[in-house]
Amino acid sequence: MPKQVNHEERKQLIAEAMWRVILEQGMAGATLRNVAKEANLSLGSLRHDFPTQEGLLIYAMELVKERATARIMTVAMQKLPPKEQILRILIELIPTTKETLAEMEVWFAFTAHVRHKAEEFDAMHDSIYPNIQKMLGTLKQANLLMEHIPTDIEAERLYAVVDGLALHAMLDPARVNLERVTEVLQHHLDSIFREE
Amino acid sequence: MPKQVNHEERKQLIAEAMWRVILEQGMAGATLRNVAKEANLSLGSLRHDFPTQEGLLIYAMELVKERATARIMTVAMQKLPPKEQILRILIELIPTTKETLAEMEVWFAFTAHVRHKAEEFDAMHDSIYPNIQKMLGTLKQANLLMEHIPTDIEAERLYAVVDGLALHAMLDPARVNLERVTEVLQHHLDSIFREE
Repeated sequence: MPKQVNHEERKQLIAEAMWRVILEQGMAGATLRNVAKEANLSLGSLRHDFPTQEGLLIYAMELVKERATARIMTVAMQKLPPKEQILRILIELIPTTKETLAEMEVWFAFTAHVRHKAEEFDAMHDSIYPNIQKMLGTLKQANLLMEHIPTDIEAERLYAVVDGLALHAMLDPARVNLERVTEVLQHHLDSIFREE
Repeated sequence: MPKQVNHEERKQLIAEAMWRVILEQGMAGATLRNVAKEANLSLGSLRHDFPTQEGLLIYAMELVKERATARIMTVAMQKLPPKEQILRILIELIPTTKETLAEMEVWFAFTAHVRHKAEEFDAMHDSIYPNIQKMLGTLKQANLLMEHIPTDIEAERLYAVVDGLALHAMLDPARVNLERVTEVLQHHLDSIFREE
């Protein structure tokens, strides 16, 4: 008996099929026809859930965001010392597994694709920067950062370190792997946290 | 009398026309036909210099690299104190003008476009990382860095800061402008250089 798949699961399977098509053929190949083929669906059946390529794209990108948020929430809910917890949250923002590298590739292809479009895609604007600002503000208030740290500039710098590592992890995953990412972030946090 | 244009200048004008097409229509619109139209040339005439879209793409990306290298050499040849000179070189790696923002957009679209292609494009692999490694090694030898600085990890971190800022300058040029970029890089260099 075939596995029962509910409506939301079905949409996720379609979005994942789109990610695979983007990974293999780039954005230019991510037509509804190709996605339907990859998902083993008829074009008409896929169009029932996603009448337009744009709608599917937005859904697929929102799913990337949702999954990243869920991973981060899992870490945030663990009881860990602040520095260790922040290190682990930042690591979640950088692709170091097959799954997250694929998500990053899709984000990259998607962002390049929509840059020159008139429509606004909300998925492009992630919430990483304001969250890093809040995080550093909280650490400062809790007296965990070195005294001379200017939190505003530190937020901009940490955001750059995170997205720079994410970009390099995607472009050169052999060098910028989990171990390397951890080492750099650990060093960065050591340079702004008060010595324990 | 029309301006005399030599062969190399003509190729550069074509490459610049391709950049404008990529900026307006993305990679999908960057066909030889559209580039010829933008450059006010017949398709046949453009094909004389660039028989294939791929050849033009590679030329256009090499031109981005060449121009960035020329800008950096200009700064590198000035007599400046080391920290000031390095700050100014790093700023050249981050798009903060209309021209360099366009170059970054083109690099981004290009990289996303070729990620899933089998062919190797040399233009994708910039030489920024090895040069940052060399630079930090030289500074360490000249005893200009703080003693506890691990140059290998610092090179990875500085490379991430630079490319993270470049990405954010492209995605959010209003916030990540020349002033902001300078402030962050100045702060970063202050954190690794010995106090004067």
